[in-house]
Amino acid sequence: MAKELKQLTKRAENYSQWYNDLVVKAELAEQSPVRGCMVIKPYGYAIWEKMQAQLDKEFKKTGVQNAYFPLLIPKSFLSREAEHVKGFAKECAVVTHYRLKSSEEGNSVVVDPSAKLEEELIIRPTSETIIWNTYKGWIHSWRDLPIMCNQWCNVMRWEMRTRPFLRTSEFLWQEGHTAHATREEAEVEAQKMLKVYADFAEKWMAVPVLQGVKSETERFAGALDTYTIEAMMQDGKALQSGTSHFLGQNFAKSFDVTFLNKENKPEYVWATSWGVSTRLMGALIMVHSDDNGLVLPPKLAPIQVIIVPIYKGDDQLKAISNKLQPVINKLEELGISVKYDDSDNKRPGFKFADYELKGIPVRLVMGGRDLENNTIEIMRRDTLEKESVSFDGIIERVTTLLDDIQANLFEKARAYRDAHVYECDNYDEFKERVKDGGFFLCHWDGTAETEAKIKEDTQATIRCVPFDYEQTEGVDMVSGKPAKCRVIIARSY
Amino acid sequence: MAKELKQLTKRAENYSQWYNDLVVKAELAEQSPVRGCMVIKPYGYAIWEKMQAQLDKEFKKTGVQNAYFPLLIPKSFLSREAEHVKGFAKECAVVTHYRLKSSEEGNSVVVDPSAKLEEELIIRPTSETIIWNTYKGWIHSWRDLPIMCNQWCNVMRWEMRTRPFLRTSEFLWQEGHTAHATREEAEVEAQKMLKVYADFAEKWMAVPVLQGVKSETERFAGALDTYTIEAMMQDGKALQSGTSHFLGQNFAKSFDVTFLNKENKPEYVWATSWGVSTRLMGALIMVHSDDNGLVLPPKLAPIQVIIVPIYKGDDQLKAISNKLQPVINKLEELGISVKYDDSDNKRPGFKFADYELKGIPVRLVMGGRDLENNTIEIMRRDTLEKESVSFDGIIERVTTLLDDIQANLFEKARAYRDAHVYECDNYDEFKERVKDGGFFLCHWDGTAETEAKIKEDTQATIRCVPFDYEQTEGVDMVSGKPAKCRVIIARSY
Repeated sequence: MAKELKQLTKRAENYSQWYNDLVVKAELAEQSPVRGCMVIKPYGYAIWEKMQAQLDKEFKKTGVQNAYFPLLIPKSFLSREAEHVKGFAKECAVVTHYRLKSSEEGNSVVVDPSAKLEEELIIRPTSETIIWNTYKGWIHSWRDLPIMCNQWCNVMRWEMRTRPFLRTSEFLWQEGHTAHATREEAEVEAQKMLKVYADFAEKWMAVPVLQGVKSETERFAGALDTYTIEAMMQDGKALQSGTSHFLGQNFAKSFDVTFLNKENKPEYVWATSWGVSTRLMGALIMVHSDDNGLVLPPKLAPIQVIIVPIYKGDDQLKAISNKLQPVINKLEELGISVKYDDSDNKRPGFKFADYELKGIPVRLVMGGRDLENNTIEIMRRDTLEKESVSFDGIIERVTTLLDDIQANLFEKARAYRDAHVYECDNYDEFKERVKDGGFFLCHWDGTAETEAKIKEDTQATIRCVPFDYEQTEGVDMVSGKPAKCRVIIARSY
Repeated sequence: MAKELKQLTKRAENYSQWYNDLVVKAELAEQSPVRGCMVIKPYGYAIWEKMQAQLDKEFKKTGVQNAYFPLLIPKSFLSREAEHVKGFAKECAVVTHYRLKSSEEGNSVVVDPSAKLEEELIIRPTSETIIWNTYKGWIHSWRDLPIMCNQWCNVMRWEMRTRPFLRTSEFLWQEGHTAHATREEAEVEAQKMLKVYADFAEKWMAVPVLQGVKSETERFAGALDTYTIEAMMQDGKALQSGTSHFLGQNFAKSFDVTFLNKENKPEYVWATSWGVSTRLMGALIMVHSDDNGLVLPPKLAPIQVIIVPIYKGDDQLKAISNKLQPVINKLEELGISVKYDDSDNKRPGFKFADYELKGIPVRLVMGGRDLENNTIEIMRRDTLEKESVSFDGIIERVTTLLDDIQANLFEKARAYRDAHVYECDNYDEFKERVKDGGFFLCHWDGTAETEAKIKEDTQATIRCVPFDYEQTEGVDMVSGKPAKCRVIIARSY
């Protein structure tokens, strides 16, 4: 393990390689033989399950219900919304046949040409089209509204360059789709769900996010407005971590979904959609982890406390175990997940390195000397600080420490982020500094031309017009034209 | 609603149509525009979520961990296991391209021929191949075993004749895949998971099941043994509700997965796989429901208690609500899901019919007279019995009644099933009686020929060689040859 750990690239050497190494070595995910698709391993999936459980609870609190819509979408559905098809046609996996048969040589299988579909089906890249086609049958009067459905599912967007969790051809996500009687209600819903995402990112993932609205260029294909939460990674790049779209009446018009209002007149329905994906795993990993491995916020750690006895012989192990068992029981009663590792086929040093790599927030170690002295060693993964403390009161010490770690990870990430947000008014300076990462608050003239030039010159993009920022009018640093507000510009994943 | 309810076909008239009606009218699911694929509506999905939650808990208790493997499988993987490809090639959805483009007329999208895949990908019909290809990288020594992974996902088997939940081209399921060092351990695992399924069916779904082993003809494609749980529907037909497979070393050999045993010699790994799907929803619906609609066992009902106030004017509503609120609070504290429906845009009669249709186990109704007399009306959905009882002690009454209903549904289904299991030794008698449904215990000579003849003559199939049945040798009723045991023969879904 010591040797394997050495193989974890240092962040300072190559941040990107460090990430790829970590994903594999911490057993979160691995590449599959299918291009751009990953296998999410049990340890990675356990973190995703914790995310899902909490998000699902928050969605349901707002009145959202889960449902399930088909994986496959008739090709023609895509074309109905003009922007939508432009956005997704280039990355669709297409099902054209429904049967294989033996090859003539008999040693392999080939596509059976007689089983060609009349209309090709695409694997959903997102489900607005099939869902709005379904909502047509559900919505007749204002009494049927609002409808608020969510589904947890897999989607497919054929990507040429992929990275585990951050960009994969298949990914897991949730997509919420709501239908409303008024524009106002839909806009409120879209913003409400952005708030749910922001709260989850900050309170559960300990990842600070900036909320804002996307420029037209960066909007979801078919939306009137796309709201976003943007997180900063340790290399200063942005990661779009969740989006919520106000879709206006675009999909209702494309799929002819109207309702009779209280005056008995037909109106098109107003829509939102919103989603977060396994991309959140990428944010979680990249924001907190270090050169020793993963660092997990306690609220999302599958194992929160690892306990390792150090012993010589069965008698000492038994004595230590007897002393520790009530602590394990009590922690579990409190809803804390504990692993007790008394395996004898690995050395303590190996165990320590392994659990650091896996990011387990708190480690307790008890040896023969501790037994004599009624002490125990406690280590926190975030700072790697350890101390020997009295065994009495260890329960409270652990619970308090878990809260501390959760808070500390957030504060640390926020301090880093805040130290890397800059106001900038000079394009030459911007071009030079943006290479090193960071979020740049710059005046923007609102044109797609300026946006395109910045991207071409620097690879950086407008992440959003931030909320919660006191805007002033000014001058666009690129075009010199008047600008109504500052936007956040950054390189991104 | 009264009118709509009339449209629910009676079971005695047309059981099959009754089922289809019920699925739609109780808002469980509906057909989608994609052939053979359904939309699972929020109420149906809420039941499935309850099933998932409990099963997931039971799996994890046995040491199983969740993971996620790719949706798409390279076509060549299928061919590696000879029986497997025979079983699934005929019903595969095949992805051949990864991009669409605008048609020349510009008004639609067409498949882009330049984006043809080198090797076609199939949408997983089941994941043994991709998982065993992955396990090859995870397994080196006996120390790496056992591996016990499960995934909750969608799968696709192109079906020509589909019915909601029972047989759909896309369905949701879980598939467990385990890898073991010894044959014995794998066999024990396969049987253990069958037991988990049987317990879940009986204790949670209140559906009695017979456990047994499949004949060779009915085995999973690639298995050495397939264990099954078989439930009886109200028309006497069988529904295979879950299967667990002992796969031997077949997939390990096909994907070259070996481990070094304790003597440092390479051996092929032993495997199991096991799954239940949204088919369970079909069993749940068909076993308990009646001509008034759905009947749900309390443990799986999304709403367990519906409370309806009957009132004239706001003052009376307020008085009734004040009286009921502590009851609602207390029930919720006890973990019971309650809905209080004081909406004023539907008549009580409509509400009653609707909640019966939805199968809510317990209904409480309080009107002005009840308020005066300190009484409340309580109705149980399973028997439709109602009585007026004292308001005092209503909490205990409700909790006891929920338990009673759960037990009663199981006993009722078991009594029905037991009354329709027959020993039969005469083929003419069998052919006549099997038309009316039921499970027939018949001696079987063990040949595929006899099995095929029975199927051809009667559409009935061998469901399993039952466990927990005292076997005696005898004479095959079809061939007259000696038979070692009796098998269960029935028509099935």
